[in-house]
Amino acid sequence: MLFSIATRFGRGKQSVTRLDVGEYIIAPDPGAARLTRAVTGTDHLGQPTDIRVVEERPLTIFLNSREIVTAMTIGDYPDYLALGFLRNQGMLGPEEEVTGVDFDDELDTVVVRTVRETSFEDKLSRKTRTSGCAVGTVFGDMMEGLDRVKLPATRVKTSELYALAHKINRTPSLYLEAGAIHGTVLCQGDRPLVYMEDVGRHNAVDKIAGWMFSERVAAGDKLLYTTGRLTSEMVIKTALMGIPVLASRSGFTAWGVEIARQVGLTLIGRMRGQRFVCLSGEERLVRDADVAAVPEEDGRYRRKGAGGA
Amino acid sequence: MLFSIATRFGRGKQSVTRLDVGEYIIAPDPGAARLTRAVTGTDHLGQPTDIRVVEERPLTIFLNSREIVTAMTIGDYPDYLALGFLRNQGMLGPEEEVTGVDFDDELDTVVVRTVRETSFEDKLSRKTRTSGCAVGTVFGDMMEGLDRVKLPATRVKTSELYALAHKINRTPSLYLEAGAIHGTVLCQGDRPLVYMEDVGRHNAVDKIAGWMFSERVAAGDKLLYTTGRLTSEMVIKTALMGIPVLASRSGFTAWGVEIARQVGLTLIGRMRGQRFVCLSGEERLVRDADVAAVPEEDGRYRRKGAGGA
Repeated sequence: MLFSIATRFGRGKQSVTRLDVGEYIIAPDPGAARLTRAVTGTDHLGQPTDIRVVEERPLTIFLNSREIVTAMTIGDYPDYLALGFLRNQGMLGPEEEVTGVDFDDELDTVVVRTVRETSFEDKLSRKTRTSGCAVGTVFGDMMEGLDRVKLPATRVKTSELYALAHKINRTPSLYLEAGAIHGTVLCQGDRPLVYMEDVGRHNAVDKIAGWMFSERVAAGDKLLYTTGRLTSEMVIKTALMGIPVLASRSGFTAWGVEIARQVGLTLIGRMRGQRFVCLSGEERLVRDADVAAVPEEDGRYRRKGAGGA
Repeated sequence: MLFSIATRFGRGKQSVTRLDVGEYIIAPDPGAARLTRAVTGTDHLGQPTDIRVVEERPLTIFLNSREIVTAMTIGDYPDYLALGFLRNQGMLGPEEEVTGVDFDDELDTVVVRTVRETSFEDKLSRKTRTSGCAVGTVFGDMMEGLDRVKLPATRVKTSELYALAHKINRTPSLYLEAGAIHGTVLCQGDRPLVYMEDVGRHNAVDKIAGWMFSERVAAGDKLLYTTGRLTSEMVIKTALMGIPVLASRSGFTAWGVEIARQVGLTLIGRMRGQRFVCLSGEERLVRDADVAAVPEEDGRYRRKGAGGA
């Protein structure tokens, strides 16, 4: 059955009501029945064991009449995922007029309708040539436009970095409930605003981009926190989204560091308890935190390899 | 400059000579200068710090005259990556006659040449329709053929599982050297044979598939160990490769479990020290290990979130 997203998924204020956790505008909803499933297996002692695992569904994204991509997703916020993916691929302009987003939960399709129907044709033809299936995105499109990126020299207080990591690690999440999932959090100052999780490597970021696009949220004063690695693609997506700071508890790749330095993005990785490494934008860090006073990570909240991939 | 892979990359026995580590036929080469880079940043105390980060390069794969995909890779074994990717996408048949693999390290391209030039056209047209950029593969192609998969009911001894995890975790690797990278190991009994690492999520598996295709290695008696999550795509790739056992230290997704049970693949996850969970193929597990005698993981070798994404 087909219906408009607005009727099915909380948008803006509705989301606030449904998912508000402390300071969050949108927080993970680990209790949502359709996002995890209980499965029975056996443990290392041969005993039956019930564990919760995250759902993983295909979602085919259409832009008007054109099929663009099939993503594997946990299935929450198909509207934000579709809008964010198309926006991050440059198939939707910053001011693009979206006339509707229709989700069909039986066909697992979401259709984004715009006034302009021709703008993306050229993009699409390029996509089919260089579609980076092993990259997780359309790389040809991502690189282009990077030279036009002007990121504001936003200052980052280390006290806020520590506060964010502390809050995010303790936020009830699908990861803490079932593992095997990635998280990305849009933050402002020491406040986490929107915390998205997904099995698809870049879906969490795309869902945030979709929310920002829908709500017309400014990016220049924001920070993006991810549980994933700081690869070239994560850095490029963040820069193209106009977010000047990217932080992660995971590690770096050489090209990710190179691009961050080129576009003036503040890049902080390996955040664990007191520790972190800054490989780009040191001059924009305000080291106001009393490091000695920062507690080490609580094992219960420490992300394991299960958070990876 | 253009030259044939064979002259540049060890193949089969040459690889053994170059990379043999203990029982391995191919082991990681963390010392290889071109795979990591030293970068200088600042740590949490504001002190300058030098860390090693993994390289990440685009590699565009051609099948004869057709450009297929651009993958982000650390850049070792472009020949195996290309062959394995094309094989796993069904663009190369199991008996496909490959007349050459040419790698150009300036253009970052690898060209696989086959006798048959038409077989993949149909695949390619489908690919451009459903190319799962957010999936990391051509999902439409992956699912098809799954119903024809017949996996042997290979028994798995828990003593061998523990032995493999112990050996693999202690093998010198790019992960232990620089983090932020995935590892996949082809194993037989308690012996790890080929250990591939890569930044690209599925490249490590594709490189193993490429090696198996090149060396005409049987799959029915093998086990695949991965540091990544047991997603539907990992399960499908493993099954299509004909490998009956997939083990990981990471977690599961619901669809991955569902498919493993459908195709009769033994699926073991959350392997940490003594612990593991088996969600498919319990009846093929031979529980011969003295669990109490299995040591807990040594923190030095424990994979952190950095292994993820």
